[in-house]
Amino acid sequence: MDNELLQQFFEGDTRALARIITRVENRSADSLEILQQLFPRTGKAEIIGVTGSPGSGKSTLVDRLAVSYRQKGKKLGIIAVDPSSPFTGGAILGDRIRMQTLGTDPGIYIRSMATRGHLGGLATATADVVSVLDAAGKDPIVVETVGVGQDEIEIVKLADVSLVVLVPGMGDDIQALKAGIMEIGDVFVINKCDRPGVDKMERAVLAMLSLAHRAGGWQPPIVKTSATKGEGIEELVETIGRCQEFFRTSSHRIQKKREAARQRLMTLLEERLVNTALQKVFPNGELNRVVDEIAERRQDPYSVVEQIIKSSTFGRS
Amino acid sequence: MDNELLQQFFEGDTRALARIITRVENRSADSLEILQQLFPRTGKAEIIGVTGSPGSGKSTLVDRLAVSYRQKGKKLGIIAVDPSSPFTGGAILGDRIRMQTLGTDPGIYIRSMATRGHLGGLATATADVVSVLDAAGKDPIVVETVGVGQDEIEIVKLADVSLVVLVPGMGDDIQALKAGIMEIGDVFVINKCDRPGVDKMERAVLAMLSLAHRAGGWQPPIVKTSATKGEGIEELVETIGRCQEFFRTSSHRIQKKREAARQRLMTLLEERLVNTALQKVFPNGELNRVVDEIAERRQDPYSVVEQIIKSSTFGRS
Repeated sequence: MDNELLQQFFEGDTRALARIITRVENRSADSLEILQQLFPRTGKAEIIGVTGSPGSGKSTLVDRLAVSYRQKGKKLGIIAVDPSSPFTGGAILGDRIRMQTLGTDPGIYIRSMATRGHLGGLATATADVVSVLDAAGKDPIVVETVGVGQDEIEIVKLADVSLVVLVPGMGDDIQALKAGIMEIGDVFVINKCDRPGVDKMERAVLAMLSLAHRAGGWQPPIVKTSATKGEGIEELVETIGRCQEFFRTSSHRIQKKREAARQRLMTLLEERLVNTALQKVFPNGELNRVVDEIAERRQDPYSVVEQIIKSSTFGRS
Repeated sequence: MDNELLQQFFEGDTRALARIITRVENRSADSLEILQQLFPRTGKAEIIGVTGSPGSGKSTLVDRLAVSYRQKGKKLGIIAVDPSSPFTGGAILGDRIRMQTLGTDPGIYIRSMATRGHLGGLATATADVVSVLDAAGKDPIVVETVGVGQDEIEIVKLADVSLVVLVPGMGDDIQALKAGIMEIGDVFVINKCDRPGVDKMERAVLAMLSLAHRAGGWQPPIVKTSATKGEGIEELVETIGRCQEFFRTSSHRIQKKREAARQRLMTLLEERLVNTALQKVFPNGELNRVVDEIAERRQDPYSVVEQIIKSSTFGRS
């Protein structure tokens, strides 16, 4: 392991931070060891999840939140998870523009993560990057995601407080709200609140909230913002603070942390076990041949898995 | 394993089919053995993926496609993957209504899958259910998903032909199109084509397609439909057929099948290895205690994983 790099990281060097994140994201050989070294310094940051459809203005909202937290003397980490381009990779233009506006402030560290190529899944990679930022003393850490896929929901589960960003007049209101997000939102933000349809959207949210089962006894508030105009931001920051305070002592939060720990452990186990088994059973890359045989239907994957488990000493008990 | 059940399944018994799907979905003890038995009978069905936002009318469209395929004498399987309610489970109302209209036709088998509780992920569970329907002689098998999360993209990769359903006037057109779907669509459907904004949507799709990198040499056509009125359905069926024909002989398809085989193998390996290791290392459920210790930050997950790997004979080589 690169002790000099860790040393620089602990001294607060931003380039060391960036390099460590890259290693962790790419699952380089020493990445788990690095995370192990950082672990004692983690667990302090408040994690704020922000989710919303494309076009809901959530990036602008996050930028406004960032400015407000900076004014309160906080050092932020922002992780923009961008699942929009799983087949091409690369940061999207919007993020590059953002990094030019906020990125000059050394108190804000912004990282974009594309979906592509995360062994163990995007949620794991995001959890690891959160850990690194946490160890680097960033607090709060804002994790921004699009949409409502299972991956995004896993990511939102990392958060202590989850914001769902809605926009008035969003297509079929109820349909848009249906998709799982009512149950993950701790705070609902109706952004672009200068547009028509705010009251209708608010009623739709309230109606859905009255139906949804909610754990933990927190009644999610609705905050109206106009991120581009900077309206409602302080109220939102204050609301996030109340929610953090509420959950800090709740059994719901303990349960959530436990679920996150289990998820983390399972994903790490999968990754390490599969890698170890494949290295052992197919030391010379015979895996590709076996994959071809399955694709050509000359073998079935179930039998192959049993063979791998038997061939690793693992199966012999 | 329940040989009588398999026997009934092979005789075409629908209740046996339903029970086998349930076992496979729930990962019951004999599920992998069942899949192994079914494997020789799979690989024949054409798999059609249908993805689109909530409100795009894709369920109605799938129903219309089903009727058309039925008229051509085909026996269909329809899998409606519903990631909308990950925390509550259960089929949504819409699917129950559908099953009343189409479900009386023994030539159509409809199954709803919620996100909740699929060990190994929703994509794996969907792949397994596709295999069961394939072995039951359903062809084509239509897999219908919402949205553009990573999970949905994995599901779409199962398909031989992927339809992306759009609606004119959908929010910010470009934003909605951005999200990865341009690269997974083989056929673009502009549904609700009696609404204003069809030309604008068509231009947006064409513009995005001209930018997107496409493998395999297929130029995705755009088909306009009005599912509620039954318009454009035959053209869509014909277009799907052309696309199937195009890919049947393409190297792109071989590559896609290879990727699917690799994915399948890896997920099965993860599942079996983790289960075997946990049973061996924590035979009496000590896993919960370890998870608690991680949640309370008394242990770090990285060290726990190393301990598990060492404690299973697996680590000793």
